[in-house]
Amino acid sequence: MKKGYKSLITLMGLPSSGKSTIARMLAKELTDKSGILTVVIGTDDIRKIIPSQLEEFDPDIEPIIKKLTLNNVQFCLNNNFIVINDDMNYYKSMRHELKQIAEETQAHFILIHIQISLETALEWNKKRGLPVPQEVIKRVYHRFDPPGDYKWDTPLVTIQSDKRSPEFAIKTILSKLLPIITSPFKPQVTSPPSKPGINEQIDKITRKMVADFAQTNKNPPLLKKISNFRIDYIKNLPNKEILIDELEKDFSQKLQEFVTRVKQAK
Amino acid sequence: MKKGYKSLITLMGLPSSGKSTIARMLAKELTDKSGILTVVIGTDDIRKIIPSQLEEFDPDIEPIIKKLTLNNVQFCLNNNFIVINDDMNYYKSMRHELKQIAEETQAHFILIHIQISLETALEWNKKRGLPVPQEVIKRVYHRFDPPGDYKWDTPLVTIQSDKRSPEFAIKTILSKLLPIITSPFKPQVTSPPSKPGINEQIDKITRKMVADFAQTNKNPPLLKKISNFRIDYIKNLPNKEILIDELEKDFSQKLQEFVTRVKQAK
Repeated sequence: MKKGYKSLITLMGLPSSGKSTIARMLAKELTDKSGILTVVIGTDDIRKIIPSQLEEFDPDIEPIIKKLTLNNVQFCLNNNFIVINDDMNYYKSMRHELKQIAEETQAHFILIHIQISLETALEWNKKRGLPVPQEVIKRVYHRFDPPGDYKWDTPLVTIQSDKRSPEFAIKTILSKLLPIITSPFKPQVTSPPSKPGINEQIDKITRKMVADFAQTNKNPPLLKKISNFRIDYIKNLPNKEILIDELEKDFSQKLQEFVTRVKQAK
Repeated sequence: MKKGYKSLITLMGLPSSGKSTIARMLAKELTDKSGILTVVIGTDDIRKIIPSQLEEFDPDIEPIIKKLTLNNVQFCLNNNFIVINDDMNYYKSMRHELKQIAEETQAHFILIHIQISLETALEWNKKRGLPVPQEVIKRVYHRFDPPGDYKWDTPLVTIQSDKRSPEFAIKTILSKLLPIITSPFKPQVTSPPSKPGINEQIDKITRKMVADFAQTNKNPPLLKKISNFRIDYIKNLPNKEILIDELEKDFSQKLQEFVTRVKQAK
């Protein structure tokens, strides 16, 4: 009855874009249609095994949850399942990590983009009773590395989940997916390691600079303000492509000005 | 802040005995008290990653879920967490498998028995809206291999969950547990591999005989009746200790009589 080959289907999209609904429906259809067990693995489910994390969110724990998630993806691919990764995957580096696991386990790597407008994501999140803070959705929206720079990073299907029903989405995805998962995996010429996307670079550089500043300035209320300042700074960057070389200088200067303003305001 | 050593805390008990409540509360307390991340891993949570299994239960999938669960236990121990295994572990062989993982990863192995009367388990299950069929609870009750035959298979604590509050249970468990998880692991003289418990042997022998019979008799309604007959047979075995040698002969004879009766009744 096995008519399919192991595959890693990687979803990408905002919180509240309907990823989990699509993931579950797709898993059921694929199990039925291909006869291959399809599992849905995502950090939101893995997080549940750490009770302390549900009561009081600790950002230091998240890398562990990520590691556990990837370990489960790898284990299931090694056991010849079809895996759907139900995560936001907003940075290119996150998608690349999954692509590498697919390559190592000789599985098809398939990217599916669940697209939704920021407004609708916020609205849907509200309707669901705000499982995610609205701020987080906005932040992820602004950090999203658009796909398409590489062949591997180009979605097989992009679903406008705010314009189409989940049933239509599943039909569209299946029609493109089935020909792939029913053909054997052929290793491709390995692509050179990709650079992190522009949003991730900006995030990392400014985050590091704030962390350096925090080393010598133990002042929690000020650091909280700086953390918000950094997020606003990123959101309001006018032209990300040009700025990357200048970024360190520019952010350092603006940060200094901001700190001076805060201190004078006292 | 790390004051503890990696440990595998293995729960055992009936469905609806309160294992999950105790597991979650204990995890939170241990994370707070030892500073070591404590995770709760159980097949019920792992099963959720396979959407088809939730809609239509397929017994052939269960060994995969078991394998995935054990893989997560192992991964978390290798990463120096404290792991609580929240499963029924009614066969000695299930407990032994976990004991071996603990040995391989050089983790403390600690067994905690959550005891409850069959009546209260059935009542609590009913109150929760029957997440588990009552039949399953009865079946697990009759199959339970009692612990205590080996040192490793002897619970550190036995909690009467129908007589004590979860808060009291946690207090009792912690007082015995903390001295162990705060001392380094010492490898013990390896115990000889244990035989499966008596209930598991009976289950396996009769299950195999029914499967052999099914090979040559493709008659689903009859096989369904035989499956129930087998369960009743096990439940009503008068003296399990004596019967094990005679079992194959006895069950074969009773099975033949049963099949004849069913066929005549038509």
